[in-house]
Amino acid sequence: MFSFYKVCLQQARSCSTRASTGLPSFVKIVEVGPRDGLQNEKMFVPTETKVEFINKLSDAGLSVIEVTSFVSPKWVPQMADNAEVLKLIKRRDGVTYAALTPNLKGLKDAISCGVNEVAIFGAASETFSKKNINCSISESLQRFEEVVKLAKEIKLPVRGYVSCVLGCPYEKIVSPEKVAQVAKQMFEMGCYEISLGDTIGVGTPGAMKQLIAVVTKHVPIEKVAVHCHDTYGQALANILAALQMGVSVVDSSTAGLGGCPYAKGASGNVATEDVLYMLDGLGINTGVDLQKTVEAGRFISQALGRSTHSKVGQAMKSSL
Amino acid sequence: MFSFYKVCLQQARSCSTRASTGLPSFVKIVEVGPRDGLQNEKMFVPTETKVEFINKLSDAGLSVIEVTSFVSPKWVPQMADNAEVLKLIKRRDGVTYAALTPNLKGLKDAISCGVNEVAIFGAASETFSKKNINCSISESLQRFEEVVKLAKEIKLPVRGYVSCVLGCPYEKIVSPEKVAQVAKQMFEMGCYEISLGDTIGVGTPGAMKQLIAVVTKHVPIEKVAVHCHDTYGQALANILAALQMGVSVVDSSTAGLGGCPYAKGASGNVATEDVLYMLDGLGINTGVDLQKTVEAGRFISQALGRSTHSKVGQAMKSSL
Repeated sequence: MFSFYKVCLQQARSCSTRASTGLPSFVKIVEVGPRDGLQNEKMFVPTETKVEFINKLSDAGLSVIEVTSFVSPKWVPQMADNAEVLKLIKRRDGVTYAALTPNLKGLKDAISCGVNEVAIFGAASETFSKKNINCSISESLQRFEEVVKLAKEIKLPVRGYVSCVLGCPYEKIVSPEKVAQVAKQMFEMGCYEISLGDTIGVGTPGAMKQLIAVVTKHVPIEKVAVHCHDTYGQALANILAALQMGVSVVDSSTAGLGGCPYAKGASGNVATEDVLYMLDGLGINTGVDLQKTVEAGRFISQALGRSTHSKVGQAMKSSL
Repeated sequence: MFSFYKVCLQQARSCSTRASTGLPSFVKIVEVGPRDGLQNEKMFVPTETKVEFINKLSDAGLSVIEVTSFVSPKWVPQMADNAEVLKLIKRRDGVTYAALTPNLKGLKDAISCGVNEVAIFGAASETFSKKNINCSISESLQRFEEVVKLAKEIKLPVRGYVSCVLGCPYEKIVSPEKVAQVAKQMFEMGCYEISLGDTIGVGTPGAMKQLIAVVTKHVPIEKVAVHCHDTYGQALANILAALQMGVSVVDSSTAGLGGCPYAKGASGNVATEDVLYMLDGLGINTGVDLQKTVEAGRFISQALGRSTHSKVGQAMKSSL
């Protein structure tokens, strides 16, 4: 079965030598399935399943995997087994195992569990910030300041997420300038990479290009990642637009794990498999094995008792 | 609910004034749901349902609707009610009601039913041609010759489909040159528009750009349409790539009707709603009302007893 798709991809690749397209030659995939994905799944996923999933992802060649978060289990019960997950996974050389750490306590716990990277999560919308993390944007940035300071002291890289970059479920419109301002502050604070999240998936490719143009006035393009949700089916087109602007870091979630809390039953994160398929076809190197990623997606979907949200996963499963 | 998305689209639009993008200012959507979509649905859809669906589509502003085909009911039982459908629909001024007519008999029947346009369906892959329409590519073109000749005599526009333009389920690789050769012959024969179909949805944006570049050496860009399937989730990215090459005609199917006969359970046609959402966001005029199209998609999905394959349809249904 797979040989067929390899041939198809070979054709796609042969048709689009990257050199002529102006696209990046290498794209780093940041796999967010185990954290951003599973966090939004209703069913509590057993620790051993999470561990096996993460091991399959690293086996597939994913070099950055956000494995858990250090948030109060009162707020995010799904991630209550953070320490155990980090203890049980098989650490592969060269793979960055990252965790979300919204505050100093979280950071300290994450450090004691031996994470390779941490992340902070801010918003470009005041109302979203208040509803999601219970403080204003500037309060959140102040809080992050101490997280980044301590992380820096021990040379632990910090990634900054900005959510609602192309629209907010409460405020609706979010200006690219507002996003750029938050991104700039996170970058200047010491985040080595800023991930721009279209949290509700409402963006379209022109808006994405405009956003990247404004943000990169303040943050170098090589430090910018995109985090697209597929709620309106626009994720891959938006990622393509971002690549055309020079972005070379893409967040995605194997099997499209994670729904959209703002539109029940709708899609959340873009599926890693679908992103990989496009990048492979574009002749862009990722270092990730699509077939193994499809298998990891199949594993976690079966564990969740549902079908994959990845179109590539569906097509490969059901094709001749 | 809808006001929210209108605001989001307004934002997307304001961020991407078309003038600066080089994209077409107007895109003609060719709605293929009632024919290409329903033909691939297992359940026979009652004639009155088809008629109501088509009326809703024309109410939404879709100006070209492929309503049925004139093929032997032995081969395509789903379209056995072609004459009745064309008799019962409410004809709206300015709307083109088209039908697929693979041979002279089909064409004559379609003419007697008062269609505004007909289409012929060829392939860029020999094996697909033999398996799908039981003759070689050159035999099929000969057969189409007489169809186009008669249609021309009565000034009935003929559209030419070329399938398997980015890959074939049997031959795997299909060269852009082969596609261009078939497209050229159909165009020179008298087809006013050539629709390039990625029948199994395996293409990626670079391959699409390469294809358009080769085909437009022989067929003017304004006569080229793209017909993308979303089997691997690539359809919108591929359509974006085609728009960037100057293509301004896009085929799509409301509610993503029609599965993929070559990968059971996988997606077929790209959903009209998802295409419209992207085009709206890009500030490209289509003359089609997204909300009404979503409602038409909801109607036909309910009639089929399943959920829509349109991500926009799902998100709008389930959003706050």
